[in-house]
Amino acid sequence: MASFTLHGIPVSRGIAIGRAHLLAAAALDVKHYLVAEEHLEAEVQRLQQALVAVHKELQTLWLDLPKDAPTELGAFIDVHALILSDPMISEAPLDIIRTRHYNAEWALLTQIDELSAQFDEIEDPYLRERKADIQQVAERVLKVLMGSAQPLAAVGDGEYQAQMIVVAHDISPADMLQFRDRSFIGFVTDVGGQNSHTAIVARSLDIPAAVGMSQASTLVAQDDWIIIDGDAGVVIVNPSALVLEQYRERQNALQRARKKLNKLKKTPAVTKDGTPITLLANIELPDDCAAAMEAGANGVGLFRSEFLFMGRNSRIPSEDEQFEQYKRAVVAMKGRPVTIRTLDIGADKPLDQTEHTALNPALGLRAIRYCLAEPQLFLAQLRAILRASAFGKVRILIPMLAHAFEIDQSLAMIAQAKAELREEGVKFDETVQVGAMIEIPAAALALPMFVKRMDFLSIGTNDLIQYTLAIDRVDYEVAHLYNPLHPAVLQLIAMTIAAGHKAGIDVAVCGEMAGDVKLTRLLLGMGLREFSMHPAQLLSVKQEILNSDLARLAPQTRKIMRSMEPDAIADAVQQLQLM
Amino acid sequence: MASFTLHGIPVSRGIAIGRAHLLAAAALDVKHYLVAEEHLEAEVQRLQQALVAVHKELQTLWLDLPKDAPTELGAFIDVHALILSDPMISEAPLDIIRTRHYNAEWALLTQIDELSAQFDEIEDPYLRERKADIQQVAERVLKVLMGSAQPLAAVGDGEYQAQMIVVAHDISPADMLQFRDRSFIGFVTDVGGQNSHTAIVARSLDIPAAVGMSQASTLVAQDDWIIIDGDAGVVIVNPSALVLEQYRERQNALQRARKKLNKLKKTPAVTKDGTPITLLANIELPDDCAAAMEAGANGVGLFRSEFLFMGRNSRIPSEDEQFEQYKRAVVAMKGRPVTIRTLDIGADKPLDQTEHTALNPALGLRAIRYCLAEPQLFLAQLRAILRASAFGKVRILIPMLAHAFEIDQSLAMIAQAKAELREEGVKFDETVQVGAMIEIPAAALALPMFVKRMDFLSIGTNDLIQYTLAIDRVDYEVAHLYNPLHPAVLQLIAMTIAAGHKAGIDVAVCGEMAGDVKLTRLLLGMGLREFSMHPAQLLSVKQEILNSDLARLAPQTRKIMRSMEPDAIADAVQQLQLM
Repeated sequence: MASFTLHGIPVSRGIAIGRAHLLAAAALDVKHYLVAEEHLEAEVQRLQQALVAVHKELQTLWLDLPKDAPTELGAFIDVHALILSDPMISEAPLDIIRTRHYNAEWALLTQIDELSAQFDEIEDPYLRERKADIQQVAERVLKVLMGSAQPLAAVGDGEYQAQMIVVAHDISPADMLQFRDRSFIGFVTDVGGQNSHTAIVARSLDIPAAVGMSQASTLVAQDDWIIIDGDAGVVIVNPSALVLEQYRERQNALQRARKKLNKLKKTPAVTKDGTPITLLANIELPDDCAAAMEAGANGVGLFRSEFLFMGRNSRIPSEDEQFEQYKRAVVAMKGRPVTIRTLDIGADKPLDQTEHTALNPALGLRAIRYCLAEPQLFLAQLRAILRASAFGKVRILIPMLAHAFEIDQSLAMIAQAKAELREEGVKFDETVQVGAMIEIPAAALALPMFVKRMDFLSIGTNDLIQYTLAIDRVDYEVAHLYNPLHPAVLQLIAMTIAAGHKAGIDVAVCGEMAGDVKLTRLLLGMGLREFSMHPAQLLSVKQEILNSDLARLAPQTRKIMRSMEPDAIADAVQQLQLM
Repeated sequence: MASFTLHGIPVSRGIAIGRAHLLAAAALDVKHYLVAEEHLEAEVQRLQQALVAVHKELQTLWLDLPKDAPTELGAFIDVHALILSDPMISEAPLDIIRTRHYNAEWALLTQIDELSAQFDEIEDPYLRERKADIQQVAERVLKVLMGSAQPLAAVGDGEYQAQMIVVAHDISPADMLQFRDRSFIGFVTDVGGQNSHTAIVARSLDIPAAVGMSQASTLVAQDDWIIIDGDAGVVIVNPSALVLEQYRERQNALQRARKKLNKLKKTPAVTKDGTPITLLANIELPDDCAAAMEAGANGVGLFRSEFLFMGRNSRIPSEDEQFEQYKRAVVAMKGRPVTIRTLDIGADKPLDQTEHTALNPALGLRAIRYCLAEPQLFLAQLRAILRASAFGKVRILIPMLAHAFEIDQSLAMIAQAKAELREEGVKFDETVQVGAMIEIPAAALALPMFVKRMDFLSIGTNDLIQYTLAIDRVDYEVAHLYNPLHPAVLQLIAMTIAAGHKAGIDVAVCGEMAGDVKLTRLLLGMGLREFSMHPAQLLSVKQEILNSDLARLAPQTRKIMRSMEPDAIADAVQQLQLM
């Protein structure tokens, strides 16, 4: 058996060594035919029954969810149930049967194709990958329709399952649940990216995974020996004994480090020289709070509220629905602050399917620009957030601000929401803090405008880097130009931190840089005292903080900031790690 | 006759008062039918003959072009001739006849529709408007095919032509030539924008024009009295006697001012306190050099070379063809410097019609990014520019630079081109200067990286503003957020000017801000000594410079730069005008 190596996208760290378990791809041979007028209603019923059957399956999955299953898995089942009961799936295909006389399978596929095309237009890489959820739901319905659905159950026998690595074209949450005994130790898929749910669940399960492996599921044979290097995004198939031995050593070293990390959960994040650092979690749904609490987060630094608006086919959640979700998060965090970012969505997102498609959606009517153009929508969200503030500590975070009048208009809307609630006798926290995302270069260059008006700042490094370098990192043709260490980017971050300190207001970083341990010391040296990241990254960053000596980092960082040569900066940042 | 006012886009300044001359819209009732196999070649010939006929028409127009016709008009005829002989028009429709059996008119329209759709995808507002050229060429061919082409000739009689304003849906260059006796004093069109050729020709003829008036050509009746306020983009139809009187007074005042301006052609641009300022021209084609010389420009600050690549349907001009064009410009400028910007085009432009369409083309593979990915194309252009440098003073300007390695790679390519030419014994200027466009925020924030490697800098304010504010100004939903006076923008410009001065290298502004007289004093106060703009704006800017006292402007500008409140900045900039 020849040894070979596959390269993909590293999405969950660590090393897994085991045998391949191939998950058969769904080879659905869907038939297309037209249904006679008199059989239309029977065809409609056939589809309705399949939808009900899948709904029941999901309920069973949910009820059977083991207590120790990752919260992400529950969340994905929620999302699938939501998708299934959304009119885009539960009604539109029925209309297609009635109007176009397509058979149920064809009608469903027609609708899915259309939805998929809409999703492809989406800017946000996270939301765009939710297309896979819709396709997985549809596939499950198709299987039921065609009578080829296997009952969901654990696969294989216990014997060699102990070290099995799942290799598949893609893995659905339902597939995931088949592995609930956790005897699988890694995931490899042909498709997917950083935000595919294989990636998200793998990270929450702390299992190594590499995705985007293109042909993996066809090149790898059942029971092949496999090494996943989850840090490099590399899969080695049928490794030599020597390579195997090397990886076993690395694996042992990693495991020892991991054990050490887990002991830090209750340790306060304080630098060697005694400076306390605030570690916050980025979340997408209230359920994510459990992981945040488990990792010992000091609060939520970024609640991406647009997730509540997603997959609803233009039906916007009501104020009450939003309130319930925000309240759940606030209650779950037990008094720790929850920073809710207002809707960061726009004309390019599925929420609004008007004719206008911006030529450059990233430079278009997004986030606060969109919210100020849709005041009723914005007001409902602000009211829901304010109402949740009666149940704990809430902060409001406004994305994509660049102009003074945008700040002023946002604050006026918040004042209006407060006035209405006061009038109605509804409780809320009168002192709720309002902050701005610093993610547009203009914002980082006009900080006096912001610190004068805002209670706190949060640097969204992902967008800030994109606009500062004028590149779209989702665009593969220019992705190589994305560089967080470009001197321009570092300056804007440093300027923002300094301006916040000078004005006496908190500054956090909530973009990906905050969760990258390779950059922790640089950010500390720049004066950052508040980091917000995915809960899974929290302990590694904490460990880095515990080992950092600000007195030594600060002068070194000032030296780096004076350098304008990218190569020298990259080298110097690596040197910081060794201090 | 009721008086009413129409609002559109001001594209050529001044006031025109006259009577409406309606240009009938082409109401072409194109027939669609399939051609029998045996008649296909006859149909192909019919289309070929029509193409030849229009080509002859254009030749006649060109030969009859009066000496005093604006150079832009000649350029547009050139462009139309180019389009006509491009395979996309001269061959593709013939193939459609042969393969799909469409009649000639239908085949032509099919091809035009496809080309139009491609043009709609184009990022660059200038190039995008060239769609109109293709449509006008096609319309002319259709008219010939359908036997409805009127011979091109002057319209109307001399009597009341004297004060006629053309009102039309759109105006083609051929239409324009009918007015060559220049008895028309203004243009109003339903469609078009800043870069439509109605706009460009009107500016070059110095005739007031307002475009984008939507229904003007249907609302205005033949011989209606009309006032065009070319500064406001307003058209007043059937004005009252009082309004007419007010406008006549404004018109007289403007004419006096104009006369004064024209006397400045040979006056050196020197501030009151004796500081000389360099005034350069932005050009698109070598022919534009005539207007630049006429306006007394000190050279060309921006030659947008992509114009040579335009409308060629993937056929890239050869090194020799490019060389001839660059040489023409260099010779025409008689020793004054000609700054040639290398290709600012990308995956979003018609040059490259691969499958990849970037989600955000403005943040994609454009300009130098594209050139470095297409080294053969880039090398050919660099060789052509260098060869032209043997005939005068040439400078090379590289667009969209943000990273040190991009600068280094560009310089390496130039070194390679030089080495090849040296090897071949071809003459060029060994000391040709190389400069960078500063148009990405990262560039303006990493100036030491640039001044170390470059001979001069040129600030492209249009893109710099777009990226700094993260808005696409062509997107009407966010166009209101475009603000050159945002404190962040002013800081980046000031930083660039200061860094250039400190390093002892020239810094120009070549974006629209350079030609806006309302901003001349602000830029002078910021230390700018080199302005590059459309030739038509040059004398007004020079007048402003002659009246400016740097000793008074500088401290006032420093004060403005310390302000972070946009409203205060806008007020203070207005105050500068009154100093």
